[in-house]
Amino acid sequence: MSLLVTGSIGIDTVKTPYGVSEECLGGSSVYFSMAASFFTPVRFVGVIGPDCPFDLAEVFAGRDVDLTGLEVRRQSKTFRWKGSYHDNMNDRRTDYIELNVLAEAPPTVPAEYKDSEFVFLANTAPALQIQLLQQVQDPFFVAADTMDCWIKDELDDLKQLLNKIDCLIINDGEARMLADVHNLIKAAEKILDMGPTVVIIKKGESGSMVCKAGGERFILPAYPASEVKDPTGAGDSFAGGFMGYLAQAGKTDFDSLKTAVAFGTVAASFTIADFSLAGLTSISKTDIDSRFETLREVTHF
Amino acid sequence: MSLLVTGSIGIDTVKTPYGVSEECLGGSSVYFSMAASFFTPVRFVGVIGPDCPFDLAEVFAGRDVDLTGLEVRRQSKTFRWKGSYHDNMNDRRTDYIELNVLAEAPPTVPAEYKDSEFVFLANTAPALQIQLLQQVQDPFFVAADTMDCWIKDELDDLKQLLNKIDCLIINDGEARMLADVHNLIKAAEKILDMGPTVVIIKKGESGSMVCKAGGERFILPAYPASEVKDPTGAGDSFAGGFMGYLAQAGKTDFDSLKTAVAFGTVAASFTIADFSLAGLTSISKTDIDSRFETLREVTHF
Repeated sequence: MSLLVTGSIGIDTVKTPYGVSEECLGGSSVYFSMAASFFTPVRFVGVIGPDCPFDLAEVFAGRDVDLTGLEVRRQSKTFRWKGSYHDNMNDRRTDYIELNVLAEAPPTVPAEYKDSEFVFLANTAPALQIQLLQQVQDPFFVAADTMDCWIKDELDDLKQLLNKIDCLIINDGEARMLADVHNLIKAAEKILDMGPTVVIIKKGESGSMVCKAGGERFILPAYPASEVKDPTGAGDSFAGGFMGYLAQAGKTDFDSLKTAVAFGTVAASFTIADFSLAGLTSISKTDIDSRFETLREVTHF
Repeated sequence: MSLLVTGSIGIDTVKTPYGVSEECLGGSSVYFSMAASFFTPVRFVGVIGPDCPFDLAEVFAGRDVDLTGLEVRRQSKTFRWKGSYHDNMNDRRTDYIELNVLAEAPPTVPAEYKDSEFVFLANTAPALQIQLLQQVQDPFFVAADTMDCWIKDELDDLKQLLNKIDCLIINDGEARMLADVHNLIKAAEKILDMGPTVVIIKKGESGSMVCKAGGERFILPAYPASEVKDPTGAGDSFAGGFMGYLAQAGKTDFDSLKTAVAFGTVAASFTIADFSLAGLTSISKTDIDSRFETLREVTHF
């Protein structure tokens, strides 16, 4: 089934204990699409300014990523982000941010994308996520990401969004903040009460948890990676692997959700092994499938 | 096969966001034995003073725990500990500690225990752990726990101990400290180089990881508990379920280690649901087996 992503394209500068990557390609829709394209064609929606040094057609060459929804906004500038990771690679600091196009009106979803069945709304203001979603006619499964600033400052909009989506993908800290409870099982249950039928809580190097309305649960550790160079994009790659697999399978029963989360985990494990997109562009679907089997092996008893 | 535990018996006062438990029974060998006794007979070694208000024979009534190794040291006093857990239930503070018998010579292992095949050396000074171990003739599988203060202050003794045991069970923070590396896979590999053939790293609410010399790995999330009242004793209950299952199975191949870690995880999940030993004393082996099946269900894909 068709898969649409809306999200950012960024010029990132990232510093980790393993080095610095200056002005490299980043952004949620870029990581998402790269990961999802291993599974299914992707319809890409995002905005850049004319200053963007990256040719996305070249970046995605040989992958089934439709860039009809890529808008170059002549009067604007591309989103820029500079961040540093501390020694433990879990905490990161934003050193500098220039929203540029992200502070403007959202892009238009092209007419030929309006029948998209699977939709991922990457993190942005929930009001914009709603506007983007309204441009899709009758999606089968909609997932969204959000972050702490929207929970704090745009909670009403976020609650409206939660009533319009099927699945929220969120960090542990954000889940606790949104649900106002520390225990993650309880937090997931409270978020399910807000609207979505599926909540996925990402716990960084501790893996992820899926809770579905009705009580079904799944818990998966992170892939045991001994090399972590740059965690940037891990969450969006996770979402890309997750949604990519679901769109390919064309179903969202609980067994499919579990498999999808395992593929998301694997996609993220490749992303963090190198800077920018290098961890994903250097591998094939066979590498993903092989690591999926390893993940099964090291978690089953 | 026979299972011996050496460890502490404590008079604990514990404060958590859910209440206070004043002068309740605690201690590593007590939690360990209670958990292990669901699987196999336990040979108990520990010391109390005449001030101990608990009748351990009554505490373990109906369970196959041999108290021949319980020493009441007339001139001494029982170990006392007072601690508080913060809201997130992961960080705890020691408010007060009285080592008493634990600061003295270790107990004697009774002659009839000397042929023990499985041995668990609960946390204490590594020199004392070595002395205790030397009293056992030819054990088949020895596991030990340790903590930050011994890594910092008694590293030489600890390294000697590591060369005499098969399995180290350790917290994530302690593993990082001992191996002097942040990544837990690398930390486990460095610890394996120090002597044991198996390292189990406990990550609290994020579960645990098993690494065996030769590259075998297993990762298991914690049981998804929505009720956590008092985490005290979780680690020792984990070790009890783990060693109890292994001694019952009489083997330590990697599949058995995986199953044992799952039973340890389940035992710990019951312990943390209530204060002191109430979470373990209120259940039956059927409850453990049923939760073991649930754990399998929520982790397999």
